[in-house]
Amino acid sequence: MVKQTIFEQMEHAVLGQQFDFDRVFEQIKWNQDGLIPAITQAQQSKAVLMMAWMNREALLETLITRQVCYWSRSRQCLWRKGESSGHRQYLTEARLDCDGDSLLLVVNQIGPACHTRRPNCFYLGLATDQVTILTEPML
Amino acid sequence: MVKQTIFEQMEHAVLGQQFDFDRVFEQIKWNQDGLIPAITQAQQSKAVLMMAWMNREALLETLITRQVCYWSRSRQCLWRKGESSGHRQYLTEARLDCDGDSLLLVVNQIGPACHTRRPNCFYLGLATDQVTILTEPML
Repeated sequence: MVKQTIFEQMEHAVLGQQFDFDRVFEQIKWNQDGLIPAITQAQQSKAVLMMAWMNREALLETLITRQVCYWSRSRQCLWRKGESSGHRQYLTEARLDCDGDSLLLVVNQIGPACHTRRPNCFYLGLATDQVTILTEPML
Repeated sequence: MVKQTIFEQMEHAVLGQQFDFDRVFEQIKWNQDGLIPAITQAQQSKAVLMMAWMNREALLETLITRQVCYWSRSRQCLWRKGESSGHRQYLTEARLDCDGDSLLLVVNQIGPACHTRRPNCFYLGLATDQVTILTEPML
Protein backbone atom coordinates (compact mmCIF):
# COMPACT_ATOMS: atom_id res chain seq x y z
CA MET A 1 0.00 0.00 0.00
CA VAL A 2 1.32 3.40 -0.99
CA LYS A 3 1.65 5.78 1.95
CA GLN A 4 -0.35 8.97 1.43
CA THR A 5 1.34 12.32 1.80
CA ILE A 6 -0.09 14.68 4.40
CA PHE A 7 -1.52 16.74 1.51
CA GLU A 8 -3.36 13.73 0.11
CA GLN A 9 -4.74 12.99 3.58
CA MET A 10 -5.90 16.58 4.07
CA GLU A 11 -7.54 16.60 0.64
CA HIS A 12 -9.99 13.98 1.86
CA ALA A 13 -10.48 15.39 5.36
CA VAL A 14 -13.74 16.97 6.50
CA LEU A 15 -14.46 20.64 7.11
CA GLY A 16 -12.90 21.81 10.37
CA GLN A 17 -10.68 18.74 10.78
CA GLN A 18 -7.30 19.55 12.28
CA PHE A 19 -3.78 18.31 11.63
CA ASP A 20 -0.58 18.75 13.59
CA PHE A 21 1.25 21.90 12.49
CA ASP A 22 4.74 20.38 12.67
CA ARG A 23 3.75 17.48 10.42
CA VAL A 24 2.43 19.87 7.76
CA PHE A 25 5.25 22.38 8.16
CA GLU A 26 7.94 19.79 7.43
CA GLN A 27 6.12 18.74 4.24
CA ILE A 28 5.84 22.27 2.81
CA LYS A 29 7.49 22.32 -0.63
CA TRP A 30 10.25 24.81 0.03
CA ASN A 31 12.17 25.44 -3.21
CA GLN A 32 15.88 24.78 -3.70
CA ASP A 33 16.63 28.00 -1.79
CA GLY A 34 14.37 26.99 1.10
CA LEU A 35 11.68 29.49 0.09
CA ILE A 36 7.96 29.49 -0.65
CA PRO A 37 6.02 32.25 -2.46
CA ALA A 38 3.64 34.24 -0.24
CA ILE A 39 0.72 36.22 -1.69
CA THR A 40 -0.54 39.04 0.50
CA GLN A 41 -4.16 40.16 0.34
CA ALA A 42 -5.84 43.07 2.15
CA GLN A 43 -8.47 41.84 4.57
CA GLN A 44 -10.99 44.63 3.94
CA SER A 45 -10.67 45.52 0.24
CA LYS A 46 -9.56 41.99 -0.75
CA ALA A 47 -7.01 43.62 -3.08
CA VAL A 48 -3.94 41.51 -3.81
CA LEU A 49 -1.18 43.69 -2.40
CA MET A 50 2.09 41.98 -3.30
CA MET A 51 3.94 38.71 -3.65
CA ALA A 52 7.16 37.97 -1.79
CA TRP A 53 9.03 34.98 -0.40
CA MET A 54 9.30 33.30 2.99
CA ASN A 55 11.72 30.82 4.49
CA ARG A 56 10.92 28.63 7.49
CA GLU A 57 12.02 31.26 9.98
CA ALA A 58 9.99 34.06 8.33
CA LEU A 59 6.82 31.97 8.31
CA LEU A 60 7.20 30.94 11.96
CA GLU A 61 7.94 34.51 13.04
CA THR A 62 4.89 35.75 11.12
CA LEU A 63 2.56 33.17 12.68
CA ILE A 64 3.87 33.91 16.19
CA THR A 65 4.15 37.71 16.11
CA ARG A 66 1.18 38.30 13.71
CA GLN A 67 3.31 40.88 11.87
CA VAL A 68 4.39 39.79 8.42
CA CYS A 69 8.07 38.96 7.97
CA TYR A 70 9.37 37.86 4.55
CA TRP A 71 12.77 36.69 3.33
CA SER A 72 14.46 39.31 1.15
CA ARG A 73 16.12 37.53 -1.77
CA SER A 74 18.06 40.66 -2.80
CA ARG A 75 19.38 41.42 0.71
CA GLN A 76 19.47 37.78 1.86
CA CYS A 77 17.99 38.51 5.25
CA LEU A 78 14.68 38.50 7.11
CA TRP A 79 12.53 41.39 5.95
CA ARG A 80 10.18 42.65 8.63
CA LYS A 81 7.79 44.51 6.32
CA GLY A 82 7.35 48.12 7.45
CA GLU A 83 10.09 47.99 10.09
CA SER A 84 11.59 51.27 8.85
CA SER A 85 8.63 52.77 6.91
CA GLY A 86 5.92 51.89 9.43
CA HIS A 87 3.91 50.29 6.61
CA ARG A 88 3.30 47.15 8.61
CA GLN A 89 1.18 44.18 7.69
CA TYR A 90 -0.82 42.72 10.58
CA LEU A 91 -1.74 39.12 9.96
CA THR A 92 -5.41 38.16 10.06
CA GLU A 93 -5.15 34.75 8.46
CA ALA A 94 -2.48 32.51 6.91
CA ARG A 95 -3.41 29.78 4.47
CA LEU A 96 -1.44 27.13 2.63
CA ASP A 97 -2.53 25.77 -0.73
CA CYS A 98 -3.55 22.24 -1.70
CA ASP A 99 -0.12 21.02 -2.71
CA GLY A 100 1.86 22.94 -0.09
CA ASP A 101 3.80 25.17 -2.43
CA SER A 102 2.31 28.62 -1.88
CA LEU A 103 0.96 30.75 0.95
CA LEU A 104 -1.86 33.28 1.18
CA LEU A 105 -1.55 35.91 3.91
CA VAL A 106 -4.60 38.01 4.71
CA VAL A 107 -3.53 41.23 6.43
CA ASN A 108 -4.43 44.64 7.72
CA GLN A 109 -2.06 46.81 5.71
CA ILE A 110 -0.89 50.08 7.24
CA GLY A 111 -0.22 52.67 4.48
CA PRO A 112 0.89 51.66 1.00
CA ALA A 113 2.05 48.08 0.42
CA CYS A 114 4.31 48.98 -2.52
CA HIS A 115 7.78 50.57 -2.29
CA THR A 116 6.52 53.09 -4.91
CA ARG A 117 3.93 54.23 -2.30
CA ARG A 118 1.12 52.79 -4.37
CA PRO A 119 -1.58 50.87 -2.46
CA ASN A 120 -0.42 47.62 -4.04
CA CYS A 121 2.39 46.40 -6.28
CA PHE A 122 0.23 45.31 -9.24
CA TYR A 123 -0.10 48.63 -11.01
CA LEU A 124 1.03 47.70 -14.53
CA GLY A 125 -1.91 46.69 -16.73
CA LEU A 126 -0.92 44.28 -19.50
CA ALA A 127 -2.52 44.17 -22.92
CA THR A 128 -1.04 42.58 -26.03
CA ASP A 129 0.18 45.90 -27.42
CA GLN A 130 0.79 48.12 -24.41
CA VAL A 131 1.34 48.41 -20.68
CA THR A 132 -0.73 51.01 -18.80
CA ILE A 133 -0.05 52.68 -15.43
CA LEU A 134 -3.12 51.82 -13.32
CA THR A 135 -2.58 53.61 -10.00
CA GLU A 136 -0.71 56.56 -8.53
CA PRO A 137 1.39 56.77 -5.37
CA MET A 138 -0.53 57.57 -2.17
CA LEU A 139 0.12 61.03 -0.72
CA MET B 1 24.34 59.05 -16.15
CA VAL B 2 22.93 55.68 -15.12
CA LYS B 3 20.31 54.39 -17.54
CA GLN B 4 16.97 53.72 -15.85
CA THR B 5 15.32 50.36 -16.22
CA ILE B 6 11.84 50.30 -17.73
CA PHE B 7 10.49 49.56 -14.23
CA GLU B 8 12.16 52.66 -12.79
CA GLN B 9 10.70 54.72 -15.63
CA MET B 10 7.21 53.34 -15.10
CA GLU B 11 7.45 53.96 -11.36
CA HIS B 12 7.57 57.71 -12.07
CA ALA B 13 5.02 57.72 -14.91
CA VAL B 14 1.58 59.29 -14.57
CA LEU B 15 -1.76 57.54 -14.29
CA GLY B 16 -2.87 56.16 -17.66
CA GLN B 17 0.54 56.59 -19.29
CA GLN B 18 1.36 53.79 -21.72
CA PHE B 19 4.53 51.88 -22.55
CA ASP B 20 5.35 49.53 -25.40
CA PHE B 21 4.44 45.96 -24.51
CA ASP B 22 7.51 44.37 -26.11
CA ARG B 23 9.88 46.64 -24.18
CA VAL B 24 8.27 45.63 -20.86
CA PHE B 25 7.88 41.95 -21.81
CA GLU B 26 11.60 41.52 -22.50
CA GLN B 27 12.44 43.03 -19.09
CA ILE B 28 10.16 40.72 -17.08
CA LYS B 29 12.27 38.90 -14.49
CA TRP B 30 11.76 35.34 -15.65
CA ASN B 31 13.52 32.98 -13.22
CA GLN B 32 16.32 30.57 -14.16
CA ASP B 33 13.70 28.23 -15.65
CA GLY B 34 12.14 31.04 -17.70
CA LEU B 35 9.09 31.25 -15.43
CA ILE B 36 7.20 33.90 -13.45
CA PRO B 37 4.68 33.24 -10.65
CA ALA B 38 1.06 34.08 -11.54
CA ILE B 39 -1.57 34.72 -8.88
CA THR B 40 -5.15 34.17 -9.99
CA GLN B 41 -8.01 36.10 -8.42
CA ALA B 42 -11.76 35.76 -9.01
CA GLN B 43 -13.19 38.91 -10.54
CA GLN B 44 -16.49 38.86 -8.62
CA SER B 45 -15.67 37.44 -5.18
CA LYS B 46 -12.07 38.74 -5.23
CA ALA B 47 -11.00 35.42 -3.70
CA VAL B 48 -7.43 34.40 -4.44
CA LEU B 49 -7.96 31.16 -6.34
CA MET B 50 -4.49 29.70 -6.91
CA MET B 51 -0.90 30.39 -7.78
CA ALA B 52 0.86 28.79 -10.72
CA TRP B 53 3.67 29.58 -13.16
CA MET B 54 3.89 31.02 -16.65
CA ASN B 55 6.59 31.08 -19.29
CA ARG B 56 6.71 33.58 -22.14
CA GLU B 57 4.53 31.46 -24.39
CA ALA B 58 1.88 30.89 -21.69
CA LEU B 59 1.61 34.59 -20.92
CA LEU B 60 1.33 35.58 -24.60
CA GLU B 61 -1.27 32.88 -25.27
CA THR B 62 -3.28 34.03 -22.22
CA LEU B 63 -3.25 37.67 -23.29
CA ILE B 64 -4.26 36.81 -26.85
CA THR B 65 -6.88 34.11 -26.25
CA ARG B 66 -8.18 35.54 -22.90
CA GLN B 67 -8.25 31.98 -21.53
CA VAL B 68 -5.62 31.32 -18.89
CA CYS B 69 -2.75 29.07 -19.89
CA TYR B 70 0.01 28.25 -17.37
CA TRP B 71 3.25 26.29 -17.62
CA SER B 72 3.03 22.98 -15.76
CA ARG B 73 6.31 22.42 -13.93
CA SER B 74 5.45 18.79 -13.14
CA ARG B 75 4.43 17.89 -16.69
CA GLN B 76 6.80 20.38 -18.42
CA CYS B 77 4.21 21.54 -20.91
CA LEU B 78 1.68 24.31 -21.47
CA TRP B 79 -1.29 23.83 -19.18
CA ARG B 80 -4.52 25.20 -20.61
CA LYS B 81 -6.45 25.37 -17.37
CA GLY B 82 -9.78 23.56 -17.65
CA GLU B 83 -9.02 22.04 -21.05
CA SER B 84 -10.18 18.60 -19.91
CA SER B 85 -12.30 19.50 -16.84
CA GLY B 86 -14.08 22.49 -18.37
CA HIS B 87 -13.06 24.57 -15.34
CA ARG B 88 -11.78 27.39 -17.49
CA GLN B 89 -10.47 30.75 -16.38
CA TYR B 90 -11.54 33.64 -18.62
CA LEU B 91 -9.18 36.56 -18.30
CA THR B 92 -10.61 39.92 -17.27
CA GLU B 93 -7.36 41.69 -16.46
CA ALA B 94 -3.64 40.90 -16.32
CA ARG B 95 -1.30 42.97 -14.19
CA LEU B 96 2.44 42.93 -13.62
CA ASP B 97 3.99 44.06 -10.33
CA CYS B 98 6.35 46.97 -9.67
CA ASP B 99 9.59 45.04 -10.14
CA GLY B 100 8.38 42.77 -12.91
CA ASP B 101 8.65 39.49 -11.07
CA SER B 102 5.04 38.44 -10.49
CA LEU B 103 1.71 38.53 -12.28
CA LEU B 104 -1.86 39.01 -11.12
CA LEU B 105 -4.59 37.51 -13.30
CA VAL B 106 -8.18 38.55 -12.65
CA VAL B 107 -10.55 35.94 -14.08
CA ASN B 108 -14.03 34.60 -14.39
CA GLN B 109 -13.60 31.11 -13.02
CA ILE B 110 -15.90 28.36 -14.28
CA GLY B 111 -16.47 25.74 -11.55
CA PRO B 112 -13.86 24.98 -8.88
CA ALA B 113 -10.34 26.36 -9.34
CA CYS B 114 -8.69 23.63 -7.26
CA HIS B 115 -7.97 20.07 -8.41
CA THR B 116 -9.65 18.93 -5.14
CA ARG B 117 -12.89 20.53 -6.47
CA ARG B 118 -12.71 23.21 -3.80
CA PRO B 119 -13.50 26.77 -4.97
CA ASN B 120 -9.87 27.77 -4.45
CA CYS B 121 -6.58 26.11 -3.55
CA PHE B 122 -5.98 27.93 -0.24
CA TYR B 123 -8.03 25.72 2.04
CA LEU B 124 -5.46 24.93 4.74
CA GLY B 125 -5.63 27.41 7.62
CA LEU B 126 -2.32 27.78 9.45
CA ALA B 127 -1.97 28.48 13.16
CA THR B 128 1.14 27.88 15.26
CA ASP B 129 -0.16 24.61 16.66
CA GLN B 130 -2.51 23.21 14.03
CA VAL B 131 -3.70 23.23 10.44
CA THR B 132 -7.46 23.38 9.84
CA ILE B 133 -9.47 22.34 6.77
CA LEU B 134 -11.32 25.53 5.74
CA THR B 135 -13.48 24.51 2.79
CA GLU B 136 -15.11 21.44 1.27
CA PRO B 137 -15.17 20.26 -2.34
CA MET B 138 -17.96 21.69 -4.50
CA LEU B 139 -20.67 19.19 -5.48
